[in-house]
Amino acid sequence: MAVEEQSRPAGPVAVLGLGSMGLGMARSARGAGLDVVGFDVAEASRRAFASQGGRVAESAGAAAAGAGVVLSVVVNAAQTEALLFGPDAVAEVMAPGGTFVSCATMDPDVVRRLAARLEASGRHYLDAPMSGGPVRAASGELTVMASGSPSAFAGARALLDAVAAKVYELGEAPGAGAAFKMINQHLAGIHIAAACEAVAFAARQGLDLARVYEVITASAGNSWMFENRVPHIVEGDYAPKSAVDIFVKDLGIVEDMARAAKFPAPVAAAALQMFLAASGAGMGRDDDASLARVYAMLSGTRLPNQKESAA
Amino acid sequence: MAVEEQSRPAGPVAVLGLGSMGLGMARSARGAGLDVVGFDVAEASRRAFASQGGRVAESAGAAAAGAGVVLSVVVNAAQTEALLFGPDAVAEVMAPGGTFVSCATMDPDVVRRLAARLEASGRHYLDAPMSGGPVRAASGELTVMASGSPSAFAGARALLDAVAAKVYELGEAPGAGAAFKMINQHLAGIHIAAACEAVAFAARQGLDLARVYEVITASAGNSWMFENRVPHIVEGDYAPKSAVDIFVKDLGIVEDMARAAKFPAPVAAAALQMFLAASGAGMGRDDDASLARVYAMLSGTRLPNQKESAA
Repeated sequence: MAVEEQSRPAGPVAVLGLGSMGLGMARSARGAGLDVVGFDVAEASRRAFASQGGRVAESAGAAAAGAGVVLSVVVNAAQTEALLFGPDAVAEVMAPGGTFVSCATMDPDVVRRLAARLEASGRHYLDAPMSGGPVRAASGELTVMASGSPSAFAGARALLDAVAAKVYELGEAPGAGAAFKMINQHLAGIHIAAACEAVAFAARQGLDLARVYEVITASAGNSWMFENRVPHIVEGDYAPKSAVDIFVKDLGIVEDMARAAKFPAPVAAAALQMFLAASGAGMGRDDDASLARVYAMLSGTRLPNQKESAA
Repeated sequence: MAVEEQSRPAGPVAVLGLGSMGLGMARSARGAGLDVVGFDVAEASRRAFASQGGRVAESAGAAAAGAGVVLSVVVNAAQTEALLFGPDAVAEVMAPGGTFVSCATMDPDVVRRLAARLEASGRHYLDAPMSGGPVRAASGELTVMASGSPSAFAGARALLDAVAAKVYELGEAPGAGAAFKMINQHLAGIHIAAACEAVAFAARQGLDLARVYEVITASAGNSWMFENRVPHIVEGDYAPKSAVDIFVKDLGIVEDMARAAKFPAPVAAAALQMFLAASGAGMGRDDDASLARVYAMLSGTRLPNQKESAA
């Protein structure tokens, strides 16, 4: 009990970004008894949190003011940097000694830079990209790939306990969490493109895709992404569970990192081209299984249950 | 019982090709009480089978003469065609009404051609590519992706029961089994290359690869191949469990099929280039996790437990 109380943040927990992930995590945090205040630039997201009984602030700065823990659930490095050091000045207004928990997937070098700048002001930075999707966010069952100082982990502990089923502690240096997350995204992005390429090719050959799904998920060609995304193709359902543009961003980061390191990554590069093609063809906000529609378009293939496409 | 006896082939079962897969399957077939005669062009393989108490013939033709079932476990379409219609004339010497069970991974169009030619002579053709590796071959637990006429299935039934834990019956037309297998190989080949690319990049960043394995196998970036092959990289063990040149062949077939169908498959194409590079660099007969060594070579990265490489 003493440890648990000690690990409670002094001020409230500010959740910045109330999209599908942030909203779920804010809900889990409240469910665990934490004092949560949320903010999102979109009014609809703020209203969604308020309708759950959540306390909403009028700006990121107002939410973060005096907060012992700030959970940042924005989409990228630029937004994270703007929150911390832009007009909202989260780095300055959060409680001294407080912990900034950053979820956005980004280049580890950027993480190291942001963390060093924040920590110079006497706050802690936990590099904590998450995986698991909105459903697990809301049920408090995310997986977190985290790195940071013992103080950063201690400050974030109650929050991590509330939102995550599994926390990988990957070292004391911010950047390690991001590096592991990027390895995951490198693989996941390729696997989505591979699933779409192979399944569209199966359709081109006239194979029954439900049967393909059954056989492949029991065979050596299976992947987590194949198992998760191919049902969208079989059902012709491209409503976004995870959008094409997320991997335009994430495989873009992989290729930027690889280029900077003089590391050739041709398989990720080929997969990225297909995400770019899907986004360029107007499907950027559709489900990432839409890459199958690009392959279909480029090969005169008809996919199952295909509605008249915008593209 | 009646059905089981009816499904027993009239003559012996000839197993042509006693490499790691064929030897295991011949062993499973003998274990199930079938009358097996084996042949391989390599004397060492014939001796291996004889040392298990197996009956060995002096040629493929001699093994197949009068056989009610011929199980072909050679490596490709050219060898299969040579067996059937070359000097050994398996198509002519096997028992009329007998069944030829073909395991090699090949282009479905080639399967259709070979099957039509064989069936014109009054024999049956079961298109039956297998997956599962040598260990499962020997324990009778392979997965078979099979298509063929009801007569072909009936003729092969006792043999399939002996070697496979799971038989997918994919239609009456030879070629469907091959098409499903090629979809599997398309995915599996990409996933091997992706695993090697991402893990070598993780090594380039100084991450602990055992930890990468632990985190990724519990995350959305996982694949059957990642889980199976990455331990070879972590242990620095490139003794061939499945050789680089197998996917040089199989992704080559995927790209040939895709080109013929005017189907762009850029992710498989990129993966194939890495298998070609590994083979070209002298690792064609090494384990296919050797692609990680190519990435390491091309980026000045040191992999764990790396022995002085031949390459």
